[in-house]
Amino acid sequence: MKLENDLYLRASRGEEIERYPVWLMRQAGRILPEYRAVRASVSGFKELAETPELASEVTVQPVDLLGVDAAIIFSDILVIPDAMGLPYQMIEKKGPWFENTIKTDSDLSLIDKNIDVEDRLSYVLEAIALTKKKLNNRVPLIGFAGAPWTILCYMVEGSGSKTFSETRKLLYTNSRLAHELLQRITDVTIEYLKAQQKHGANALQLFDSWAGILGHDQYQEFGMKYITQIVDAIDGPLTVFAKGAYSSLPNLMDLSCTTIGLDWNMSVINARSLCGNTKTLQGNLDPCVLYGSHESIQSETFKMLKSFKSPRHIVNLGHGVYPDIHPENVKTFINTVKNYEI
Amino acid sequence: MKLENDLYLRASRGEEIERYPVWLMRQAGRILPEYRAVRASVSGFKELAETPELASEVTVQPVDLLGVDAAIIFSDILVIPDAMGLPYQMIEKKGPWFENTIKTDSDLSLIDKNIDVEDRLSYVLEAIALTKKKLNNRVPLIGFAGAPWTILCYMVEGSGSKTFSETRKLLYTNSRLAHELLQRITDVTIEYLKAQQKHGANALQLFDSWAGILGHDQYQEFGMKYITQIVDAIDGPLTVFAKGAYSSLPNLMDLSCTTIGLDWNMSVINARSLCGNTKTLQGNLDPCVLYGSHESIQSETFKMLKSFKSPRHIVNLGHGVYPDIHPENVKTFINTVKNYEI
Repeated sequence: MKLENDLYLRASRGEEIERYPVWLMRQAGRILPEYRAVRASVSGFKELAETPELASEVTVQPVDLLGVDAAIIFSDILVIPDAMGLPYQMIEKKGPWFENTIKTDSDLSLIDKNIDVEDRLSYVLEAIALTKKKLNNRVPLIGFAGAPWTILCYMVEGSGSKTFSETRKLLYTNSRLAHELLQRITDVTIEYLKAQQKHGANALQLFDSWAGILGHDQYQEFGMKYITQIVDAIDGPLTVFAKGAYSSLPNLMDLSCTTIGLDWNMSVINARSLCGNTKTLQGNLDPCVLYGSHESIQSETFKMLKSFKSPRHIVNLGHGVYPDIHPENVKTFINTVKNYEI
Repeated sequence: MKLENDLYLRASRGEEIERYPVWLMRQAGRILPEYRAVRASVSGFKELAETPELASEVTVQPVDLLGVDAAIIFSDILVIPDAMGLPYQMIEKKGPWFENTIKTDSDLSLIDKNIDVEDRLSYVLEAIALTKKKLNNRVPLIGFAGAPWTILCYMVEGSGSKTFSETRKLLYTNSRLAHELLQRITDVTIEYLKAQQKHGANALQLFDSWAGILGHDQYQEFGMKYITQIVDAIDGPLTVFAKGAYSSLPNLMDLSCTTIGLDWNMSVINARSLCGNTKTLQGNLDPCVLYGSHESIQSETFKMLKSFKSPRHIVNLGHGVYPDIHPENVKTFINTVKNYEI
C-alpha cells in the first residue's frame, strides 16, 4: 500500500520532496497529556512498552495530535539486553537499572545464546503490526534499536552514568570480552531490526547515545565496527544517530545507510560538506529552543532551515524532546517546518 | 625564590625543557589512602576544603607520594557561587547541591554585590600560602577556578545534570539574565584568580567542565566571551580546559593564555595543527587507561607521547583521575612520562 505521506521515505532516499519532513525523537511519550493519561493507567513504563495495544496507541498520538510526518514505535533500546537474559527495571525519575551486569568472563553465562528474537520481542513486533493498522497508511512507521556500544554500556554499567568508566575500563582490561559481547548484541540486533521491518516498520534508526564518550580510535574499534555490520545487513531507509561522535563524522558518512542523524552541537554545514549529496541528514535543532517564545522558536527553526544547502534533510531536534516542553511549542516548530518552502 | 623543579612553568611558556612535566587533574583527593585518612578525620568534603591546614596537607600529598611536577590546590570550583551568596552542600555519592538557585530576575537578589573576595575566600588563600610553605619551592602550585559558563550551570540547575536543560533554557528565555550573571561571575573570578596569584599560586587553570553541552555559536556568546575577559585580565601561566568544546578548538587557540587543556577525545595532532607552536597543550590520556595493566599503561602513554610533535606539552589525563584507580598505576603513568626522552 502506498503511503499518503511518504515525504520521510523520499527524503531518506534522496528523491524529490515538496517540503522537508519533520518528526521528533521521543515524540511518543513524555510531552503529551494524552500520553500521560495512558501512562497513568498502567503500573509503569515497562508495562506500557510491553502491552502492544497501549504502545501502539501512544505511538499514533503524535501523528494525530502534532501532525508529524512519521511515527516511531514506543519502546526502549534496552529491550535487547532484556531479551538476551539481562532484565532491566525502569525506575521513576532515576532511569534504567539492571540487577545483573557483565563485568567478567564468567558473567557471560548470564547471557542466553541462540534466542528466538521474534518470540522474546513479540510484544514490540505486535505493537508495530497494530500501529500499522491504526496509522492506516497515513505516514511511515520507524522502528529502532540501540547501537551495540550503547547497549554494552548499560549491560556493563547496569545504569546510566556520567562517565561509563566501568565500560571504558573493560576496553582496556578485557577487550576480548567487550568484543564478544558486542558481537552477540550485533547479531541479535540485526535479527531484531529485520523482524521490525517484516512486521511493518518502513524505516529504521540506530541510536548510539554514548558514542561521544569514546575517542576516535576506540569508537572505530568498539562502535563503528559493529554499526557497519548492522548497516550492511539491512536494506531500506536506516538512520544512524551517533550522539557526540564529532571526530567520527567523516567515518559515519562512509556507512552504507541512507541517513545520518546530527546532534544539536554538530554543524549541518560541516556535515554536508563531508557527505556531499550521498546522505540524508537528520536533525538538529537544540531541544532547548522549544522552551522559548513562539517567535523565537520560529526564528531559530528558520535559521536551521536556511543552513540546509540540499533537499536531503529530515527535520528533527538534535536530541529527544525534553519532558517539560509544552505541546503548543512543539506544534510551532512542526508548523514552521511544514510551511517552509524549499 | 627559584623553584627546584620549574618544568611545568617552562613548558607553559614554551621554553626549553629536558622532559615533559606531568601532573593529574584531581590528584589531590580521591585516590590516595593517605588522603582518605585525612578525609575520614573531618565531617565532609567542605570541612576539609575550608580548613587550610588540612587542605594544604592533601595538596602536597601527591608531590610527596606520586612525584608529580606540580601541585594543585585542594578546593572546588563551587567556592565562587558560595562566596557570591549561593551556598552549596557536597552530598556523599551524589555531588553538589544548592538550596537556592537562580531562575528568574528576582532570584538575582540572592546574589551579594560588591563582596570582599579575599575575605570570603580567605580559607582558600590561606591554604595556598600554607601549601607554598610546605612545598618549600619544590614544584609550582596551581590555583584554579571554574569558567563562568560552568558556574552558571550549577547556579541555575542547583546540582549536576545530564543535559543542564534548565540552564540552556535560560539562554533562550532570558538571555539578559544569563549575561548579567555570567558578568558577575566573571568579575568575581578575575579577583579570585588574582588573589590566588598574590598568595602564591605560580600558575592558574580555568575549568569549563560543561563547555561541551553548547553548540559553537552559543559557546562563543555565553562561554568564550567571559573566558576571554578572564584570560585578558590575568598575567602568567594560565590553562583553559574547555571539556568537550570540539567545535570551538580553533577559537580557544586564539585566546591570550599560555596553555589549552585537551580532553581524551580531542586529537593532539589536530590541536597542534590548529595552534602551531603558539600554545602549550595539556593532556590528554584517557583516564580509563589507568585501569589497565602496567604494560598497557606504558604502551598507551608512549603512544600519546609519540604523537607530540612539539616540546610545548604538559602531560596529564584528559579528565580528572577516577576515584578507584590504584596509586601504583598512577605511578606507572608518571614514571613512564618522566623516563621518556624528548
